Amino acid sequence: MAKDGLKIVTIGGGSSYTPELIEGYILRKDELPIKEIVLVDIEDGKEKLEIVGAMAKRMVEAAGLDWTVTLTLDRKTALKDADFVTTQFRVGLLNARVKDERIPLSHGILGQETNGAGGIFKAFRTIPVILDIIEDMKVQCPDAWLVNFTNPAGMVTEAAIKHGGWEKTVGLCNVPIGHVKTASEKLELPKEDLFFKFAGINHFHWHKVWDKSGKERTDDLIDLIYGPNQNEDDNHLKNIHSALFHYEQIQDLHMLPCGYHRYYYIEDEMLEHSIEEFENGETRAQVVKETEARLFELYKDPELDHKPEELSQRGGTHYSDAACEIIASIQNDKHTEMVVSTKNNGTITDLPYDCAVEVSGVVTAHGFEPYNWGEFPNAGARGIIQNMKGMEETVIRAAIEGNYGAALQAFTVNPLIPGGTIAKTVLDEMLYAHKEYLPQFADKIRDIEENQPETVQNVDELMKTNVKKKV
Amino acid sequence: MAKDGLKIVTIGGGSSYTPELIEGYILRKDELPIKEIVLVDIEDGKEKLEIVGAMAKRMVEAAGLDWTVTLTLDRKTALKDADFVTTQFRVGLLNARVKDERIPLSHGILGQETNGAGGIFKAFRTIPVILDIIEDMKVQCPDAWLVNFTNPAGMVTEAAIKHGGWEKTVGLCNVPIGHVKTASEKLELPKEDLFFKFAGINHFHWHKVWDKSGKERTDDLIDLIYGPNQNEDDNHLKNIHSALFHYEQIQDLHMLPCGYHRYYYIEDEMLEHSIEEFENGETRAQVVKETEARLFELYKDPELDHKPEELSQRGGTHYSDAACEIIASIQNDKHTEMVVSTKNNGTITDLPYDCAVEVSGVVTAHGFEPYNWGEFPNAGARGIIQNMKGMEETVIRAAIEGNYGAALQAFTVNPLIPGGTIAKTVLDEMLYAHKEYLPQFADKIRDIEENQPETVQNVDELMKTNVKKKV
Amino acid sequence: MAKDGLKIVTIGGGSSYTPELIEGYILRKDELPIKEIVLVDIEDGKEKLEIVGAMAKRMVEAAGLDWTVTLTLDRKTALKDADFVTTQFRVGLLNARVKDERIPLSHGILGQETNGAGGIFKAFRTIPVILDIIEDMKVQCPDAWLVNFTNPAGMVTEAAIKHGGWEKTVGLCNVPIGHVKTASEKLELPKEDLFFKFAGINHFHWHKVWDKSGKERTDDLIDLIYGPNQNEDDNHLKNIHSALFHYEQIQDLHMLPCGYHRYYYIEDEMLEHSIEEFENGETRAQVVKETEARLFELYKDPELDHKPEELSQRGGTHYSDAACEIIASIQNDKHTEMVVSTKNNGTITDLPYDCAVEVSGVVTAHGFEPYNWGEFPNAGARGIIQNMKGMEETVIRAAIEGNYGAALQAFTVNPLIPGGTIAKTVLDEMLYAHKEYLPQFADKIRDIEENQPETVQNVDELMKTNVKKKV
Amino acid sequence: MAKDGLKIVTIGGGSSYTPELIEGYILRKDELPIKEIVLVDIEDGKEKLEIVGAMAKRMVEAAGLDWTVTLTLDRKTALKDADFVTTQFRVGLLNARVKDERIPLSHGILGQETNGAGGIFKAFRTIPVILDIIEDMKVQCPDAWLVNFTNPAGMVTEAAIKHGGWEKTVGLCNVPIGHVKTASEKLELPKEDLFFKFAGINHFHWHKVWDKSGKERTDDLIDLIYGPNQNEDDNHLKNIHSALFHYEQIQDLHMLPCGYHRYYYIEDEMLEHSIEEFENGETRAQVVKETEARLFELYKDPELDHKPEELSQRGGTHYSDAACEIIASIQNDKHTEMVVSTKNNGTITDLPYDCAVEVSGVVTAHGFEPYNWGEFPNAGARGIIQNMKGMEETVIRAAIEGNYGAALQAFTVNPLIPGGTIAKTVLDEMLYAHKEYLPQFADKIRDIEENQPETVQNVDELMKTNVKKKV
Repeated sequence: MAKDGLKIVTIGGGSSYTPELIEGYILRKDELPIKEIVLVDIEDGKEKLEIVGAMAKRMVEAAGLDWTVTLTLDRKTALKDADFVTTQFRVGLLNARVKDERIPLSHGILGQETNGAGGIFKAFRTIPVILDIIEDMKVQCPDAWLVNFTNPAGMVTEAAIKHGGWEKTVGLCNVPIGHVKTASEKLELPKEDLFFKFAGINHFHWHKVWDKSGKERTDDLIDLIYGPNQNEDDNHLKNIHSALFHYEQIQDLHMLPCGYHRYYYIEDEMLEHSIEEFENGETRAQVVKETEARLFELYKDPELDHKPEELSQRGGTHYSDAACEIIASIQNDKHTEMVVSTKNNGTITDLPYDCAVEVSGVVTAHGFEPYNWGEFPNAGARGIIQNMKGMEETVIRAAIEGNYGAALQAFTVNPLIPGGTIAKTVLDEMLYAHKEYLPQFADKIRDIEENQPETVQNVDELMKTNVKKKV
Repeated sequence: MAKDGLKIVTIGGGSSYTPELIEGYILRKDELPIKEIVLVDIEDGKEKLEIVGAMAKRMVEAAGLDWTVTLTLDRKTALKDADFVTTQFRVGLLNARVKDERIPLSHGILGQETNGAGGIFKAFRTIPVILDIIEDMKVQCPDAWLVNFTNPAGMVTEAAIKHGGWEKTVGLCNVPIGHVKTASEKLELPKEDLFFKFAGINHFHWHKVWDKSGKERTDDLIDLIYGPNQNEDDNHLKNIHSALFHYEQIQDLHMLPCGYHRYYYIEDEMLEHSIEEFENGETRAQVVKETEARLFELYKDPELDHKPEELSQRGGTHYSDAACEIIASIQNDKHTEMVVSTKNNGTITDLPYDCAVEVSGVVTAHGFEPYNWGEFPNAGARGIIQNMKGMEETVIRAAIEGNYGAALQAFTVNPLIPGGTIAKTVLDEMLYAHKEYLPQFADKIRDIEENQPETVQNVDELMKTNVKKKV
Repeated sequence: MAKDGLKIVTIGGGSSYTPELIEGYILRKDELPIKEIVLVDIEDGKEKLEIVGAMAKRMVEAAGLDWTVTLTLDRKTALKDADFVTTQFRVGLLNARVKDERIPLSHGILGQETNGAGGIFKAFRTIPVILDIIEDMKVQCPDAWLVNFTNPAGMVTEAAIKHGGWEKTVGLCNVPIGHVKTASEKLELPKEDLFFKFAGINHFHWHKVWDKSGKERTDDLIDLIYGPNQNEDDNHLKNIHSALFHYEQIQDLHMLPCGYHRYYYIEDEMLEHSIEEFENGETRAQVVKETEARLFELYKDPELDHKPEELSQRGGTHYSDAACEIIASIQNDKHTEMVVSTKNNGTITDLPYDCAVEVSGVVTAHGFEPYNWGEFPNAGARGIIQNMKGMEETVIRAAIEGNYGAALQAFTVNPLIPGGTIAKTVLDEMLYAHKEYLPQFADKIRDIEENQPETVQNVDELMKTNVKKKV
Repeated sequence: MAKDGLKIVTIGGGSSYTPELIEGYILRKDELPIKEIVLVDIEDGKEKLEIVGAMAKRMVEAAGLDWTVTLTLDRKTALKDADFVTTQFRVGLLNARVKDERIPLSHGILGQETNGAGGIFKAFRTIPVILDIIEDMKVQCPDAWLVNFTNPAGMVTEAAIKHGGWEKTVGLCNVPIGHVKTASEKLELPKEDLFFKFAGINHFHWHKVWDKSGKERTDDLIDLIYGPNQNEDDNHLKNIHSALFHYEQIQDLHMLPCGYHRYYYIEDEMLEHSIEEFENGETRAQVVKETEARLFELYKDPELDHKPEELSQRGGTHYSDAACEIIASIQNDKHTEMVVSTKNNGTITDLPYDCAVEVSGVVTAHGFEPYNWGEFPNAGARGIIQNMKGMEETVIRAAIEGNYGAALQAFTVNPLIPGGTIAKTVLDEMLYAHKEYLPQFADKIRDIEENQPETVQNVDELMKTNVKKKV
């Protein structure tokens, strides 16, 4: 840390989440000796940056703090001497997410931001950028911590550590927070009296729970949450449809699934619901766009100097707070127990040693110390996570190399994409649709433009079409 | 071996394949000092056993051999002092296979004898029986070799070795034979001049090929077989629809897929074709039933004393020949290079040490010695085989314990079953449909009968319906 | 826990350490709702049990507590409904340790209670007894925790978990405590401001240290402790000669060794010193016997009602305090950070999944949660711990089966025993010397008695000889 | 292969083994379409090269072959377009081996060319040279095979593959040949009727044996060779003293050890014998020097045109023949079953994936295909090989980096070096003694020269002393 206080740089500073982040810092003002907060964005996000930046300044001022809040489009300069760099950027903005969701759904397959075709394309757009950021960091702030919450957080974290070589990376997720809350409510015990052990990869983890007497309560929770009285309202994730898991299958796991497991364990129900959303023009991205528009309207209010309640509706809530807690825990060697994406190093012995996993552990001044997990005892869980990790590695390889074969491979083995032929169709359409943000695939995209008029036309139609209507 | 010659016992001796087996023995008469061949079957198969048994006797006699051919329904006695036991039985006969295929397809999902819902149910019916046979063998012929070619051969082999404790088990497959033939033709080189290395699990393996100059020819073969001039006729498997693989995806593997990979890599095309077959009443089992009927008509001919040409149309051709070669190679320590299902022991480091894998190696007098394989370099291949193996382990567990949760788990993670809710529906219908052969699931089936009238009715309808028509 | 308070049973209750244990409970009286402390010993230890038991009662009374202190020789009854069972027994008492040390040294090889020939024999005597205790516990107190600090603690813990099936076992060691103290002193930082990560096996672990700013200080500590100004006084272990490590070798490790590593890294110096002790009749056991005699004299004093200062000279100090802290942390779900022997489960990926390792982690109500360690990066460390673990597994096998070949194997591969021929000589002499406590080796010992008069004579001589003089 | 015939280059062509190599080629003249044999040596070996080269030419001529035999000191040019490169050079010639053996022995510790202090120094001298050769090969003959039989063959092979990146490397050993012969004699069965499976690392492997009936004969052989009638004459290795293994320990292994295991399993006896040899001036190097002198006298005879019988006394016999067989098997895709050093790739799951192991398999046109081995079931074997491999990796690291700490680490963990203090003494003396051939350690050696007069003096004495007498 610089002598005179912390410098925290946020890439994607114009995000609607920023007020939550600022609020998190303010709440921890006694733990965080902040000197400067730098919000960085790109030309296309300039307007948002200015709105949210002004709001951030008001929040800091209202809290009576002398922190400098800097707004800039010059990422390289911004990174100079940073202590912490948080990343919450979205390459291609929400419009790209609309495509990530709607193109697959137009073919009747799941479009989902983090795990399916959508997540793969988000990785294709994001990974080259995170590696660029790291190249800048090597020069500008070689000792800084990188706290990533850009999705797909697991793949981005793996790329940063394994391919960027940035060991001081922590990947964040807000999903565990809700599961802790649910367990506490169902068992009628304060969360402090429960011990949680999560393990898996981002948006694909399971957990076990013990109480203060040392008794494992996992099976009790399976009964309470997924048993005969299972209730759609138990799902705490704003962005995931509350289809019901099948009790006997979850019982057999002897582990609690995460909300995103619905996409894998009851894919058929999730798909049905997603298609409805698609047909109504209500895919997640479309809903979020509207929420965001409302939020930015609020943020523009020069009187507003605290995080508005409406932000909680945004979906990714808790992310920013988790990020602030990570920073505070590193800064103060707090040993806070958290669940983050980190280098495996054998924590989960079923997965490659050098991949990223998302597990429970403590955040110390020197980084994250995961509790050992070992093997997944149930082959049903073990196999599907190994498959997903294989897919993730293939996505990262494709993203870095601009390798079309690897991209098709990833699509083919992704369990949410129901066959290689539809995979190729969707892959080609998405490559064309996102061409602006995929320079690494330029050759292949040119080839599509020249030789696949039908592909081009389909996407152009979809882009032109009022998204309220199915193409 | 007994002093006076080999005793070979075939469980499921009434099978239409038996003449190929007898022919294989006759062709190897100089290598195999056979004293007695015992064909065992069950009461329901008695008629077939007598037809095919008489034919076997005629074949042996025509060959001028003094081997005894014994027909019996008493398995236990038959096993006494056996040197080799081959298993080719089919629990529930072809009617069960009809259900394995048609019930899933009636819901629009793949019914396939070895890898999907059908394969899972074949395992449920078969694994308890193979473990029973092994219990008899422990008493009657503790030094015998078990040569299994009952499908799903990989899971049956794993159950025999890991759960039955019968180390002297070899699981057979005829799939590699066709791939060797194709490679030889495409490269225009005799197969003796090529080195093949297969690795994977049954009906789910890849291979690499080298020529006599030491050059690896795998990528050349990918170009020749799956490149721009890809041809449906290159598929050598009678029972698998010849949909075309996607070239770029196979290129990225740098390994040649097996024919069954179509179900995973281009599931959508295979499904479409299967549904057509379903609607025309031409699923594989239905076709085979007719072929079998014709074959048994032929076998009845008291003049016929050699394997009829028509048997080659049956689909499983080469299986029996491979079995005879295994026996000859063990008997004579021939070191024949083959591809069999065997205990992993680290041959494929990505899979559990104690599971069954299907790999290249040599057959010696003390058993199969696999060539080391190591890791699958391509995460796309590694992940999907780990998932399949996890599923197989879960199927075996369910089969042995009669565990409904495990059965649902296996259905849920099987990549050919597109969601947990349809999985449960199909699982319940199949449990009910096969109830006669699934004593281990009796409690659950009773529960279905009592509480799921719709499930019962659906199956009953399907059973009543002329299978030519979709229900 | 029983409704009315904790029952803690100590096997080997007549040990001179017991007052430290009692003191530990008294210090934690607010955390530990104790109802009864039962001190169990065997007939041969009755006198000591009575002395130390009376003292324990005085201590409890002086502390104004109403805990019952029970003395008994009836182990089985004592275990009834226990909440915690601590084990600190010594099969064969200190006389056996004298033999463990002096017989090897009489041949010029290291006799050392935990890692060399002596440790192997302590394991041979102890493992059958711990497994017996566990059989009793299965009946009498199936939910109790077993807190073991009988040496060799690593092998005893492994036997208890892996062979006894008692998952709720924690193995204790006092060695890390001293290393924490040294690091704190050398870095001039309070130990609370340092993060320690230990990994290895009992009496064979390394550690790394970080400070509150997140900086790793391991290399600094190597310089401070083992650099040019290395000082014999830095060794904190009463029972280990303070020979100096070689700086460059420790530098190359980038990990801090534990005190016992002197036996492996500078075996020659340790041996030289041990031989001196041997010749002066001052091996550790001999010194301890005298210390113990003095302690028991003190304990007899009916006025003494607190732990005497002299006990700190005993060597194993901190053991009992660590045991009390474990109990308090389990009882209160304290998450105390400790270093204990526990099941590996992949924590150290270089070692078998099911073996015992000694690592850092937190003690919770449901047991120990180790921090993941992963691989040992330095092959020099990795190889020697793999060898030691291989040896330990072989010792445990020999101890359970009474397998002479395995015993000779363990002696042969033990790095402190310089050759197979001397190994066999020492093994045979020790088997004969300890025959009273090794019923599992009875056949082999009878064979030695009948056919190896020289072996018998050597041992008999050594036993007769005044141990002040070398035989 | 070049169109007009094979070019085989031998580095260290002036070796006394060369005639065996030439004889091997001549015996395989029908399999090997040789055009040119190039014998390369260095300036210091020029005289020997000329003697042995002239002899090689006479041998080729006498066989009536038109092969060109070229002698050269220009390695780089020699490698141009080579098909096979064999390496049998000895950096520092036999004088260096004298030092490798005598310096350790002068301190009472084993000096042994391949596994102890001597082997470590041979690796220090050789590894930089093999990596240099590979750099030349990358330019001059990028498709050539490297057949190494320079010791320590395991470490040299590992360095070539892992650090030099030369995948087409095969490391040779003659040790298995003798074990095959012994087994055949003891079982009174032709070796063709036995199946051998070797696994381990160079000069540190075990084997199992089966007969033609499929029966494992390993335990029978242990009884026959190492049982009560064990005989010193059973040892077939000229260079290894025939001390007797301990039967019960070998029985416990259920594997047959190799001759070199005497250094580990009965180190005390081997050491005693070596010290005798040392005192008599008859260490192996000294004996070999005399043998070599005699051989070169013979080779000078212009009438001699075939390999003289005396060469068989040299010790490394069969090495060259094995090399010729490797070449013939690669050239002709013969699938000869051999035992070679190769990349592990999981063949032995207990060892690192990327290390070199020595195992059974077949030699094909595309290289060596090992039979899978899996785990070592006996922890006694598993641990010691893991330790040795850890040591080897550390030696290689030290050799490449000139890293003194790593060198001391390797010495410290080597099981044949009995302590870290003697290790440092011997290491320093050997570094000084070999300074001419260890440029990578120049700084440390300069430091020794300047600051350790006693070390320098000891070595200088030893060098001056008539080696017949102990210093």
